[in-house]
Amino acid sequence: MAKKSDPKQTKYLLPESEIPTKWVNIAADLPGEPLPPLSPQTGEPLGPEDLAPLFAMALIEQEVSAEPEIEIPEEVRDAYRLWRPTPLIRARRLEQALDTPAHIYFKYEGVSPAGSHKPNTAVPQAFYNAQQGIKKLATETGAGQWGSSLSFACQMFGLECEVFMVGVSYDQKPYRRAMMETWGATVHRSPSDLTEAGRSQAEHSTGSLGIAISEAVEVAAQSDDTNYALGSVLSHVCLHQTVIGEEAIAQLEMAGEYPDVVIGCVGGGSNFAGIAFPLLRKKLKEGLDTRFVAVEPAACPTLTQGTYAYDFGDTVGMTPMMPMYTLGHDFVPPPVHAGGLRYHGDAPILCALVKEGLIDAKAIPQTEAFESAVQFAKAEGIIPAPEPTHAIRAVIEEAEAAKAEGDERVILFNLCGHGHLDLAAYQAFLSGELEDLEFSEEDMKKALESLPDAPAVA
Amino acid sequence: MAKKSDPKQTKYLLPESEIPTKWVNIAADLPGEPLPPLSPQTGEPLGPEDLAPLFAMALIEQEVSAEPEIEIPEEVRDAYRLWRPTPLIRARRLEQALDTPAHIYFKYEGVSPAGSHKPNTAVPQAFYNAQQGIKKLATETGAGQWGSSLSFACQMFGLECEVFMVGVSYDQKPYRRAMMETWGATVHRSPSDLTEAGRSQAEHSTGSLGIAISEAVEVAAQSDDTNYALGSVLSHVCLHQTVIGEEAIAQLEMAGEYPDVVIGCVGGGSNFAGIAFPLLRKKLKEGLDTRFVAVEPAACPTLTQGTYAYDFGDTVGMTPMMPMYTLGHDFVPPPVHAGGLRYHGDAPILCALVKEGLIDAKAIPQTEAFESAVQFAKAEGIIPAPEPTHAIRAVIEEAEAAKAEGDERVILFNLCGHGHLDLAAYQAFLSGELEDLEFSEEDMKKALESLPDAPAVA
Repeated sequence: MAKKSDPKQTKYLLPESEIPTKWVNIAADLPGEPLPPLSPQTGEPLGPEDLAPLFAMALIEQEVSAEPEIEIPEEVRDAYRLWRPTPLIRARRLEQALDTPAHIYFKYEGVSPAGSHKPNTAVPQAFYNAQQGIKKLATETGAGQWGSSLSFACQMFGLECEVFMVGVSYDQKPYRRAMMETWGATVHRSPSDLTEAGRSQAEHSTGSLGIAISEAVEVAAQSDDTNYALGSVLSHVCLHQTVIGEEAIAQLEMAGEYPDVVIGCVGGGSNFAGIAFPLLRKKLKEGLDTRFVAVEPAACPTLTQGTYAYDFGDTVGMTPMMPMYTLGHDFVPPPVHAGGLRYHGDAPILCALVKEGLIDAKAIPQTEAFESAVQFAKAEGIIPAPEPTHAIRAVIEEAEAAKAEGDERVILFNLCGHGHLDLAAYQAFLSGELEDLEFSEEDMKKALESLPDAPAVA
Repeated sequence: MAKKSDPKQTKYLLPESEIPTKWVNIAADLPGEPLPPLSPQTGEPLGPEDLAPLFAMALIEQEVSAEPEIEIPEEVRDAYRLWRPTPLIRARRLEQALDTPAHIYFKYEGVSPAGSHKPNTAVPQAFYNAQQGIKKLATETGAGQWGSSLSFACQMFGLECEVFMVGVSYDQKPYRRAMMETWGATVHRSPSDLTEAGRSQAEHSTGSLGIAISEAVEVAAQSDDTNYALGSVLSHVCLHQTVIGEEAIAQLEMAGEYPDVVIGCVGGGSNFAGIAFPLLRKKLKEGLDTRFVAVEPAACPTLTQGTYAYDFGDTVGMTPMMPMYTLGHDFVPPPVHAGGLRYHGDAPILCALVKEGLIDAKAIPQTEAFESAVQFAKAEGIIPAPEPTHAIRAVIEEAEAAKAEGDERVILFNLCGHGHLDLAAYQAFLSGELEDLEFSEEDMKKALESLPDAPAVA
């Protein structure tokens, strides 16, 4: 394409016709058979039929698929039009502020209606369930990012949405609840008296993500026309997020550059998977040198300090056991502001890639993360959500290393959401009240003793 | 351009090279000389030199310019690159929900870092002041939209920013304050003990916009290297906002359509001016039929029930007297959620156009506005700020009229900001606690008695 190049170009935009038509299934690139999830009751491998009471069959097929690419339904691409393709932005003013020779690009997922990458999977999950005749989706939400994304997606496909919101968030974050209700969802404070699980935990009045999951799963299991939806960790969720990296590849081509390093934050793993997997496939196919860095909070260092083993996905041991890096399902992460990164495990597919040495991991304390986020906001305007502040710290460290080495390094990261509903965290940082919460090795060791009885995976 | 048309296209995007190079000065299209502002002390017409203690000379020249177009400095266009051109979006899902033959387009200004159209003028105001060697801008803010935009803009050009925030907002909206501080501003609760004006009003502990203006003006007047900045009402502010309408014209061309009606909400008038003035010039030049509708809250109906007269811009009578529709500067609008629309007057340039019959005005009660905003959010995803909910109500009424008349009407409106920091208003609406606050004709009549002694303008 002969095109007049613009030396100050900041945003690389694709037309809607370039919304990806296929998701990238990285499972196809991994050697050998993937380790199956195991039944929490029997310890036996689970088949697709075991998941059918909770998930739409199309999603279960994606969860176990070995196909390298999976077609995106036209209805999902039409819904993506509301905010996709998202911009790829060159952080020229941050580069200047850092006086670095590095070129810093970021994919900005904060332009979605819910303000994060989560609708990328909420939309197809709602679509496939609606297509199968399901009338309602039940889910849990902590800080509210996932609950609001699913509320929005259900509204688009005429599904009801029932959200169990962790009690303490329900009380402290009424605005996230208002967002969900604006999109038509019903939001319950968890523990509620609507479920067995909720009633049995009535004494834990502040609630927990574990209890909220149990409530949503119970509601979904009880009714034939209600299913359950999860916002991260599972392979089909990571799959849906790959639209991020696919668009980024096309946009980097417009910019005439290719990243030396790809950076993202990791909680359950899906936003990182979204930007990284398409570029990882390209690296494997074309023998590129690209490095991949998954960044987690120092207070919840699953990939850097966890054990690779079968563990439950939830804290109460109701979900299937999955092979992953884990701090132990009993481990309660300190209340860091990046609520989306407080998870004892990580997506099994991502863990397998870390295990294979294809992805590096790094842990960052939250005060350093917020310091970098403020520097970013002053240069680029956008105020990041607490989760990607961790990625931004790692980006700035890369850019500083590039400067020290006089290296015109190309850095790509995923700015997975804005912080408009998380300004309390900035307030705490700016007033000097933000603390680095200690990771307790003691607690991890105790939690790891509770690992379920399952085959070793090393 | 031979281009494959996309029958489902939702977003019309322009490249950065299409960021406008000139602002549209509608003053050049009005017949006769504009009425001058008058001194609050002497009642005599004010010249540019009278405004020099508060404003940069380049801005004063724009305020009184009769040139039809004013060039946008390259540094301002470079700063605009962070979020401009903003998308023009076709609200196809809202059209479907309304089952209307109307085509509804909106310009979405919520993509700016501060989340509204305000940075369009904050950026050039900061630029011209920095260019003149000014070191600091002082301003007031109510709900925080303007204060956050100016904080961001000052950061971009290395200026300090001092914001006097109305006391009750300072207490109730800590998150807007966190936003301003993240961008490096100093925020004071007003009334403060930093100024004579503040100390004299110490008994009004909740503050008011009038007091905050007085504090900011005092700070700016006291120091040679500090100036004052205003976020609406003045002609140079309306001028800067015309990038919205200029981009819209180019984007409508991409869509192959031209609006029959252009709609925006009006508080001080600048977001409406921004979308309307370029299309109004086109109408006047080309003899088009386009209608223009300015929408205000029924609780503060300046254009529909006010008197056209000289009045002070502030409540305490310190600013110049301006010719405008006014409810009287003593009028205290009820505390509707659209804080940005609570103003006793309107931009003189806009009022002159309403007076000429070139722009229609309409008043909408806030419960109807929020009802329509929820309908919009369910269809389009975006949750609007409280101010443009009023425009959305008027848009839906137009679309319903189009349906009744079987008319394929093209509607364009300005969605001037998102509501992420205003979800309390949605919470109030959804819980049935939002009320339509009465406009008091009694209070207006009393306030109009306080109109300053000045020449009649009818």
